[in-house]
Amino acid sequence: MNHSLNKINLSRLKSTFEVSSNIGKTKGGGLTRLPLSKEDKEMRDVFISWLKDAGLHVRIDDMGNIYGRRDGTNKNAGAVMIGSHLDTQPKGGRFDGILGVLSALEVIRTLNDNNIETERPIEIVNFTAEEGGRFGVPMVGSGVITDNLTKEFVFSLRDKNGITFGESLEEIGYIGEAKNRFINFNVDYYVEAHIEQSTVLEKNQNSIGIVKGIAGETRFEACVKGQSTHAAHSPSERRDALVAASEMVLAVDSLKEQFEGLSPAIGTFEVYPSLQTITASEVKFVYIIRHFNDDISNKAIELVKKQFREIAGRRNVEVNIEQYWKAESTEFVDEVTTLIEEGAKVHGYSYQNILSTAGHDATYVNGIVKSGMIFAPSVGGLSHCEEEFTSYEEIEKTANVLLYVVESLAKKEPGNTVLAAPDGSEVEFKPEEERN
Amino acid sequence: MNHSLNKINLSRLKSTFEVSSNIGKTKGGGLTRLPLSKEDKEMRDVFISWLKDAGLHVRIDDMGNIYGRRDGTNKNAGAVMIGSHLDTQPKGGRFDGILGVLSALEVIRTLNDNNIETERPIEIVNFTAEEGGRFGVPMVGSGVITDNLTKEFVFSLRDKNGITFGESLEEIGYIGEAKNRFINFNVDYYVEAHIEQSTVLEKNQNSIGIVKGIAGETRFEACVKGQSTHAAHSPSERRDALVAASEMVLAVDSLKEQFEGLSPAIGTFEVYPSLQTITASEVKFVYIIRHFNDDISNKAIELVKKQFREIAGRRNVEVNIEQYWKAESTEFVDEVTTLIEEGAKVHGYSYQNILSTAGHDATYVNGIVKSGMIFAPSVGGLSHCEEEFTSYEEIEKTANVLLYVVESLAKKEPGNTVLAAPDGSEVEFKPEEERN
Repeated sequence: MNHSLNKINLSRLKSTFEVSSNIGKTKGGGLTRLPLSKEDKEMRDVFISWLKDAGLHVRIDDMGNIYGRRDGTNKNAGAVMIGSHLDTQPKGGRFDGILGVLSALEVIRTLNDNNIETERPIEIVNFTAEEGGRFGVPMVGSGVITDNLTKEFVFSLRDKNGITFGESLEEIGYIGEAKNRFINFNVDYYVEAHIEQSTVLEKNQNSIGIVKGIAGETRFEACVKGQSTHAAHSPSERRDALVAASEMVLAVDSLKEQFEGLSPAIGTFEVYPSLQTITASEVKFVYIIRHFNDDISNKAIELVKKQFREIAGRRNVEVNIEQYWKAESTEFVDEVTTLIEEGAKVHGYSYQNILSTAGHDATYVNGIVKSGMIFAPSVGGLSHCEEEFTSYEEIEKTANVLLYVVESLAKKEPGNTVLAAPDGSEVEFKPEEERN
Repeated sequence: MNHSLNKINLSRLKSTFEVSSNIGKTKGGGLTRLPLSKEDKEMRDVFISWLKDAGLHVRIDDMGNIYGRRDGTNKNAGAVMIGSHLDTQPKGGRFDGILGVLSALEVIRTLNDNNIETERPIEIVNFTAEEGGRFGVPMVGSGVITDNLTKEFVFSLRDKNGITFGESLEEIGYIGEAKNRFINFNVDYYVEAHIEQSTVLEKNQNSIGIVKGIAGETRFEACVKGQSTHAAHSPSERRDALVAASEMVLAVDSLKEQFEGLSPAIGTFEVYPSLQTITASEVKFVYIIRHFNDDISNKAIELVKKQFREIAGRRNVEVNIEQYWKAESTEFVDEVTTLIEEGAKVHGYSYQNILSTAGHDATYVNGIVKSGMIFAPSVGGLSHCEEEFTSYEEIEKTANVLLYVVESLAKKEPGNTVLAAPDGSEVEFKPEEERN
């Protein structure tokens, strides 16, 4: 099959971004649109109106995930799902997963503009609470429906005010039906656009990141218990939880030097009682270990546990370590990554293969349907902060590649597929069996 | 002059402690009686009723310091002031400075019981906000009236809810008149009983600590600024304020190994934004350097500043260091310490010389009038915590020694002073000029 090289409408996509960038806007120019907050509800309501305007069939599942389906010509064909998440971290950025949802919407609008019918249905998705900044656990909307997390567990997660996920989802009126989950709707592919959360693309001056896989990630909460006493207490006799925890932080950080490719990080860090003349009785902190090789992650995890125990023993404090979340590393199929590369090529965009250290909804969805991700460069690699920035020039490229991939997947049939290159010449692609 | 060996009434002192231990009582058996809180007001009201019942002339100065004066027989003689503070840290203990105030009250009640007249007036004092746990700066009641802190500075200090010291003092109705400050009332001596905030007495199994001096203390707030980004951002490129601050904490802590007798400590420690998948953009922490030798303190302070800058440079963060409070080391006069020793001896209590690493109101008062401190042992050296504990057996000893010192100072005239030892024999003491 042939298709002309379609392009998205950047000025329309800009307008869409501008609406989103004002829902939960922070003084610092970022977004605080926490999952299931009133800002999230406002964004969801607007999003659904957009889906309806685009003629999509809207569904909401029991996790609050929102879908909009564009019919395909072949009722038996599995759908191509595209999207990401519209929620943000506290004082997060305007792009992150929002790029994936809004560029997916633009892809559908472009197909509508051009009266393009596809054989496969196309399904846009906004996953609930990809960000863990409010309820402590990330990717819960995709995690539950792919059987990686239980609904009971997620519904009982509490934010810092004690409000549960379940209460919040009900409060904003977004509890739909389990039968609406995408797994009940014959979905064959999932493609997620997202900003890169590091500087690989920027450094190499490439516009399109073809994500080959996502690192495995394990999260722990460490609780260090010492004994509060007056800060003038003899230093050698103190059981200062903060000094011990500081040494543990450095132990986690130094894993990056001991295991190549390992990305260790400290998340929350809370000190009690945190008073001027009182030593710390307790420090609770989250640490995260990421690597593409789960065996290496496990080695690092064991090493740092051993180091924590050594530090605790030497500093006369107790440490308790709890693993509270884990996602194994995942690799995306060539069938999708190849199409991303083709999309970049036919548009003449610079591109490269890339790995994602950060987790995404695609981590979980890839366990169920063939998935892929397209990364856009983020200035300075910054994300989850107000400074997060990706230019419209880059956003346009990402959305055009997404459009290309969607058209290719949605129209695709077994056998040879011929696409028009930018110069009008035909490019021959082999059937997927031969490519893999 | 002779006097029989008087003793305080422990069962009455116990009852007094029991009242105090219930005003601001915590679940964990400690006290949260923050300066100028409603609990502090309640304690002050009860305290004043006790002063009046004891026949004292009550005054309140413009810092809310409360005094109760017992007249002496010689109107021209300078007073002996005794006391400490009744406020506590959040989840602090029942003893701390409370011991100094309640044992002072018991001393006066005992003099009353025995119809003992003294030549010098005796003045009990409860200093306002010795603890810095609410307004961030300690010893402000004694600090202002001894010209170590300005009233404007202290009145504008804010608690974490933004309420100023001045507003709080007015709110509880304890703004008195500046003319009531003790410096306008001819005070010659100040003696403060307090629990020891370390384990020296406990380890040596001694009951009475004769405090020879108080360490100099300098407090700093360090602000480390990095850049928040996704925790999966390439580790080598991050500007993680928490990792840098952790290294700084260890630098402060290790000063204890580099400078003998130095007591370094970390106070408050706050991390922003403290979220799971976001690196820290900012950490603010307080660190405190204490030593009896101010030159050594200064060397340690300079060293750690240099280390902070090196760490900040290497980890690509900024650090700003602000010294916000300082009290120089102080030595108590032999005239008072000798009487404390005599008091312990005549009662047959075990005693030793001791230095206070922690600051007290006596740090400031000693700059104005001749001062001294008596330490009682605290179990495990714990203080500023709910576990803080000193037995009534030890409290009785402390109060008896305080009584002895007060009687000695208040009756004292130039010339030989003869006191009765426990066995009834007379002990001869030289005039102070010869002793010094």
